[in-house]
Amino acid sequence: MNVATSRTEKPYYIPQADEVEVFRAAYQGRMPVLLKGPTGVGKTRFLEYMSWDLSETDEQLRMETVSCNDDLTVGDLVGRYVLEGGDTRWIDGPLLSVARTGGICYLDEIVEARKDTMVVIHSLSDHRRELPVSRLGETITAHEHFQLVVSYNPGYQSTVKDLKDSTRQRFVAIELGFPPEALETDIVAHEAGVDRQVAERLALLGRKVRAIQTDMMIEGPSTRVLIHAGRLISRGVPARRACETAVALAISDDVEVHTAIRELVTAVFAADD
Amino acid sequence: MNVATSRTEKPYYIPQADEVEVFRAAYQGRMPVLLKGPTGVGKTRFLEYMSWDLSETDEQLRMETVSCNDDLTVGDLVGRYVLEGGDTRWIDGPLLSVARTGGICYLDEIVEARKDTMVVIHSLSDHRRELPVSRLGETITAHEHFQLVVSYNPGYQSTVKDLKDSTRQRFVAIELGFPPEALETDIVAHEAGVDRQVAERLALLGRKVRAIQTDMMIEGPSTRVLIHAGRLISRGVPARRACETAVALAISDDVEVHTAIRELVTAVFAADD
Amino acid sequence: MNVATSRTEKPYYIPQADEVEVFRAAYQGRMPVLLKGPTGVGKTRFLEYMSWDLSETDEQLRMETVSCNDDLTVGDLVGRYVLEGGDTRWIDGPLLSVARTGGICYLDEIVEARKDTMVVIHSLSDHRRELPVSRLGETITAHEHFQLVVSYNPGYQSTVKDLKDSTRQRFVAIELGFPPEALETDIVAHEAGVDRQVAERLALLGRKVRAIQTDMMIEGPSTRVLIHAGRLISRGVPARRACETAVALAISDDVEVHTAIRELVTAVFAADD
Amino acid sequence: MNVATSRTEKPYYIPQADEVEVFRAAYQGRMPVLLKGPTGVGKTRFLEYMSWDLSETDEQLRMETVSCNDDLTVGDLVGRYVLEGGDTRWIDGPLLSVARTGGICYLDEIVEARKDTMVVIHSLSDHRRELPVSRLGETITAHEHFQLVVSYNPGYQSTVKDLKDSTRQRFVAIELGFPPEALETDIVAHEAGVDRQVAERLALLGRKVRAIQTDMMIEGPSTRVLIHAGRLISRGVPARRACETAVALAISDDVEVHTAIRELVTAVFAADD
Amino acid sequence: MNVATSRTEKPYYIPQADEVEVFRAAYQGRMPVLLKGPTGVGKTRFLEYMSWDLSETDEQLRMETVSCNDDLTVGDLVGRYVLEGGDTRWIDGPLLSVARTGGICYLDEIVEARKDTMVVIHSLSDHRRELPVSRLGETITAHEHFQLVVSYNPGYQSTVKDLKDSTRQRFVAIELGFPPEALETDIVAHEAGVDRQVAERLALLGRKVRAIQTDMMIEGPSTRVLIHAGRLISRGVPARRACETAVALAISDDVEVHTAIRELVTAVFAADD
Amino acid sequence: MNVATSRTEKPYYIPQADEVEVFRAAYQGRMPVLLKGPTGVGKTRFLEYMSWDLSETDEQLRMETVSCNDDLTVGDLVGRYVLEGGDTRWIDGPLLSVARTGGICYLDEIVEARKDTMVVIHSLSDHRRELPVSRLGETITAHEHFQLVVSYNPGYQSTVKDLKDSTRQRFVAIELGFPPEALETDIVAHEAGVDRQVAERLALLGRKVRAIQTDMMIEGPSTRVLIHAGRLISRGVPARRACETAVALAISDDVEVHTAIRELVTAVFAADD
Repeated sequence: MNVATSRTEKPYYIPQADEVEVFRAAYQGRMPVLLKGPTGVGKTRFLEYMSWDLSETDEQLRMETVSCNDDLTVGDLVGRYVLEGGDTRWIDGPLLSVARTGGICYLDEIVEARKDTMVVIHSLSDHRRELPVSRLGETITAHEHFQLVVSYNPGYQSTVKDLKDSTRQRFVAIELGFPPEALETDIVAHEAGVDRQVAERLALLGRKVRAIQTDMMIEGPSTRVLIHAGRLISRGVPARRACETAVALAISDDVEVHTAIRELVTAVFAADD
Repeated sequence: MNVATSRTEKPYYIPQADEVEVFRAAYQGRMPVLLKGPTGVGKTRFLEYMSWDLSETDEQLRMETVSCNDDLTVGDLVGRYVLEGGDTRWIDGPLLSVARTGGICYLDEIVEARKDTMVVIHSLSDHRRELPVSRLGETITAHEHFQLVVSYNPGYQSTVKDLKDSTRQRFVAIELGFPPEALETDIVAHEAGVDRQVAERLALLGRKVRAIQTDMMIEGPSTRVLIHAGRLISRGVPARRACETAVALAISDDVEVHTAIRELVTAVFAADD
Repeated sequence: MNVATSRTEKPYYIPQADEVEVFRAAYQGRMPVLLKGPTGVGKTRFLEYMSWDLSETDEQLRMETVSCNDDLTVGDLVGRYVLEGGDTRWIDGPLLSVARTGGICYLDEIVEARKDTMVVIHSLSDHRRELPVSRLGETITAHEHFQLVVSYNPGYQSTVKDLKDSTRQRFVAIELGFPPEALETDIVAHEAGVDRQVAERLALLGRKVRAIQTDMMIEGPSTRVLIHAGRLISRGVPARRACETAVALAISDDVEVHTAIRELVTAVFAADD
Repeated sequence: MNVATSRTEKPYYIPQADEVEVFRAAYQGRMPVLLKGPTGVGKTRFLEYMSWDLSETDEQLRMETVSCNDDLTVGDLVGRYVLEGGDTRWIDGPLLSVARTGGICYLDEIVEARKDTMVVIHSLSDHRRELPVSRLGETITAHEHFQLVVSYNPGYQSTVKDLKDSTRQRFVAIELGFPPEALETDIVAHEAGVDRQVAERLALLGRKVRAIQTDMMIEGPSTRVLIHAGRLISRGVPARRACETAVALAISDDVEVHTAIRELVTAVFAADD
Repeated sequence: MNVATSRTEKPYYIPQADEVEVFRAAYQGRMPVLLKGPTGVGKTRFLEYMSWDLSETDEQLRMETVSCNDDLTVGDLVGRYVLEGGDTRWIDGPLLSVARTGGICYLDEIVEARKDTMVVIHSLSDHRRELPVSRLGETITAHEHFQLVVSYNPGYQSTVKDLKDSTRQRFVAIELGFPPEALETDIVAHEAGVDRQVAERLALLGRKVRAIQTDMMIEGPSTRVLIHAGRLISRGVPARRACETAVALAISDDVEVHTAIRELVTAVFAADD
Repeated sequence: MNVATSRTEKPYYIPQADEVEVFRAAYQGRMPVLLKGPTGVGKTRFLEYMSWDLSETDEQLRMETVSCNDDLTVGDLVGRYVLEGGDTRWIDGPLLSVARTGGICYLDEIVEARKDTMVVIHSLSDHRRELPVSRLGETITAHEHFQLVVSYNPGYQSTVKDLKDSTRQRFVAIELGFPPEALETDIVAHEAGVDRQVAERLALLGRKVRAIQTDMMIEGPSTRVLIHAGRLISRGVPARRACETAVALAISDDVEVHTAIRELVTAVFAADD
């Protein structure tokens, strides 16, 4: 599945560190980028921001997102012939399309794809910057503004599914983590439409739950999860019920995890009582 | 498989707790909903009710149900071209169709689907609310009244089949359990057409069998199962035989379980003797 | 594979217990039926009988049998488009066909089917009684005389292949076992064309072999197997050779089982010497 | 793969025991036959003989052999549409073809087929004697002279691949073993074109090697293997070399087995020195 | 993949033992041949020679080689319909083609094929000598000069992949090993274009490396590997470097193996220093 | 995926040892080449160089690269028919194309391909030098300037995926390792556009990290990785951050590895402080 982005307003994104500068250098040096980090941490937003930031014209740099999965074929990325009115017509896939026109092609959760998907990017991601299209019988040289980005979550992956060294050593890696508490407060307030006090408590709750995530064998709540809780609160759901619904039940099925989170919620929102 | 619902009478549904309010807040806040709970507990009915409850016009909010399974493809959800009279015609799948027109799209037992099905909903279930349709070469922005709902049964799932964190953290979770005894009595009486005394005994039987479900390593009987027993009784099958048929044999193949349930049936229906 | 039945003579079937009454109540109460029992016990015959018994007109209630297997697809059950003379024509599958016209649709050995087959019957087997047909873009409401029946053999199934609780709790279960000895004697005499004395001995042999089936780790001989022995006898094969051929070699490859059965045959047919 | 047989000369076959009579009774009683026995023991020949023996007219009863395997589909057995000159034409598969016209349909090594193949014969192998052909939308009732035969080798099968009880209890079983030594001598002499003395030694060698087959963990040499050795001898290959080539190397890759067989060959052919 | 051979010059092949006579007797006796032996030992050359040797006319007996693999289908062997200019045309596969016209059909590394490939040769490899072609609706009787040959390498095969007894007992087996040292010297000199002294050293090296192959857990170097070393030498690569490249690195990735071979090379080529 | 190369400028490549001479001898002796070595070591560059070096005319020898993967089919290598305007047209695959016209066909990471891909090269890689094309019904004899090259990384491969001996003994093997430090300094300076001092430090860092690669259970950083670090530095990213991004995070997800590399970076770039 691929999503085209051509919004023209500046995307809401607050940098965590020097990720914007490093990305820009990789872009200028024509090196593909590997984004590492947990789910819901803002990787898509960061790229939406970079596609705006790197634009040299009035028009935003194009961005196509492909969510990788087991069923993704080379044809889904590169293109295929479709039958139309008894005749066949070629339709560029997102990778070929962006390679032609320039822009960011983002392969989200690359390790979910089969190895053949990884392999198809090899010639695009080294000094050749070429994409052979055997069905068309031609080889496309990538546009000078073509930028390949792949992402994955090192904590989430099983040991079986891993990037091959011959793939990963083609990339410059940028790591994104959970945002610092103050920054996360800003984001939750902005995205959920709650006041700063509620946003602060939700950010605090996030930090506390993440602190027990290894013990509890869970993936810690993403900023998105905290925003969800905020939105329920802003629509009248009581804070504890909102956190139960958007945080505890959403991140785990384990009753002990639910109890632990409920206690943290109680501690964080005690001031409301 | 998808089922379109466009009934106009108010569906029979009695809330267990605040699930109606939380669902309404999620709908207003444009957050997808994850329904958790055992089989036969009324998840489909709840959504039929919500699609009636959320309707702002005379017409009920549309609802499409897709029962997920291993063979479900992205094409089944999004749509496909069919050949017709030598020409090809595009048919929207239920997910795309509801994304266009608004309504509830309900993916029942989501964990039964392959990962690619989960992945196709990613861009629809975050801030983008977009569904790319590569075959059409366009990206659909979801209707403002589009509501995505997925369900699964945490007790029933094997540990292998689980929602990925990058999927589940996109949802606000609502849990539905077995209804309280008085409520279940009402439901059984209403749906099976038996008098309150019989309905009470069946609800009591349900409670008692569920109490031993962990020991007996079974999934406890759903309200549906109790309704079935009621319907057999109302058609002249003796109560014990009806419970044997609709409860004991239906929920297990284990002779010890059958014996245990038979004893509970005897205890519950002793007053009839 | 599906077999249409439209015979008009009354099928030969002698009830074991109250299965006819319970089935009739399930039919009237619009509840799907799960038939449980060992192989060759007469499940197909019972349903042929019920389709005759439930007929309210001169014409017998229609019955379609589908033998489930790994390769059975949703298309095999619901229907598919076929190319004909350059044009496509839709052909209803047996499930859709019976859902439209009424009658019994019998899915034999349901656990042999993949999960997607089970899932396709979900909306047909609860209060909705609907079958969505995505390829046609419509949803069929089942005929008022539509009755869904599935069967399986609890003793035979491996633990891996099992009905999901979300499937099995949709059914009222009826169990059929080996017929009582007197009844089995009648059946063997009628079906094999042997006199009562031979039929009695074969029924006795059946009972004796079934008594050792657990020790011997075999599935006991079905009534069908005894009928086969009877038919060989009636065509001049000596009784011992007929039982060797139709019973011992047919139900097992184990030499010890063969020896044990041979001894039972000798005991049962000693009177002939 | 299926092989049609319509030879009119009487096939060379010498019965081992009463297999001809039992087969004839099964044919007259309309019961399908399960042939059990090791490889190369003459199962195909036996059926060629029976198809000659059962013929009631001048023309031999038709026989179709299908060698079962993992890739065999229901379509291979029942039939399929083929494209021809822009139009589709139906071609009967061997099972449907013989069901229509009568004759023996022989499914060789049935356990090698997937379960769906076994399932397709269910309705043909019980009282229904019907073959539903969903693609044609009709159900064929088998010809009165239709005889279904399946075979398998109980010693050769792994425990995983086995006939389901619901399949095997539909059959009357006939077991064929290695022929007695005198009979095997006749067969080898006839088929290999060697004199009786050589044939006797080869039959003796066969018996001796089979005697050690369990210890050596091999499948004993079939009569066919002995015929091969005979044919090499009759074309001038020395007896020891012929047995090395046709027996030792052909039945095993194990050097110890080769040595053991070579010693037996030396003992058996010592008289030649 | 299949390779047609119709060369008319006599192929270069020096017999190891009586393999030519045995093969000729098998050909005359219409028995299929199983060639056993390690890789690169000259099996293809032997068959090229036999197809020349067996020719009774001016034209060499035809030979088709099929390298077996997991993806080889029955259609690849027997034939298939292809679309051409809107119409379908049948193309014989190599097995059917040679069965029609006579010649050697060689299935190289038969155990690499799926079982269905093995099964398709059953009726061709017993007294029937027939190939049914279900797609054409006919059965081809093999040409009198049709000779089926299959090969495999017993040492190389895993225990999982093995010929079924019902397949292998249809063949007369001929074993080819590494050629004796003098013969191998001749072959290397002839094929690599090196003088006898170099060829002798390479043959000696081959013998020495094969002597340690079991200890080192490698497959010993084939004659082909020694020819490669000779060719590098004849083109100016120093002998040690040539043996490093063509022998040590080519047959193993294990550093200890490399060291051991290097020592043997030093010993063998010491005279050059 | 295949990439055609027809550049006319001399590729930048500095030989490590005698690989150019050995390759040239293999080319002249018509022997296929197996390139062994770690990822990013310059295998593709070496072949680009050889295709320039071996050219006898003004035009560079053609080169086609195919990145092997699980989904690569024989059709991808050899060719296939495509539908075009209602008619079918044959398109040569890269292997067939280069076999016809001459040039280097490079199968990168051959062990990633399924066995059938390896098998298709068998007849091309021995004395036959032929490629059968069953779909075309013809056999192509390779051009005299056709050179087959395959590569793999012995350290990287799992033990399951390995070249079969019957495949690997067809090749002359050339091993490429990490370049010596002075050479690597030249390459980094040239490719990254950094001054010699920075290049020296990066080459030193590469050597140091490779020295701990076995302990740390990682694949050591390729020259490409060092070039990436250099390019970030030349675009203003501080050296430590550049090494963090391009080396540490890129080659591993392990925090201990990151720490170890960070210490080495500190040691190497200490002089900058």
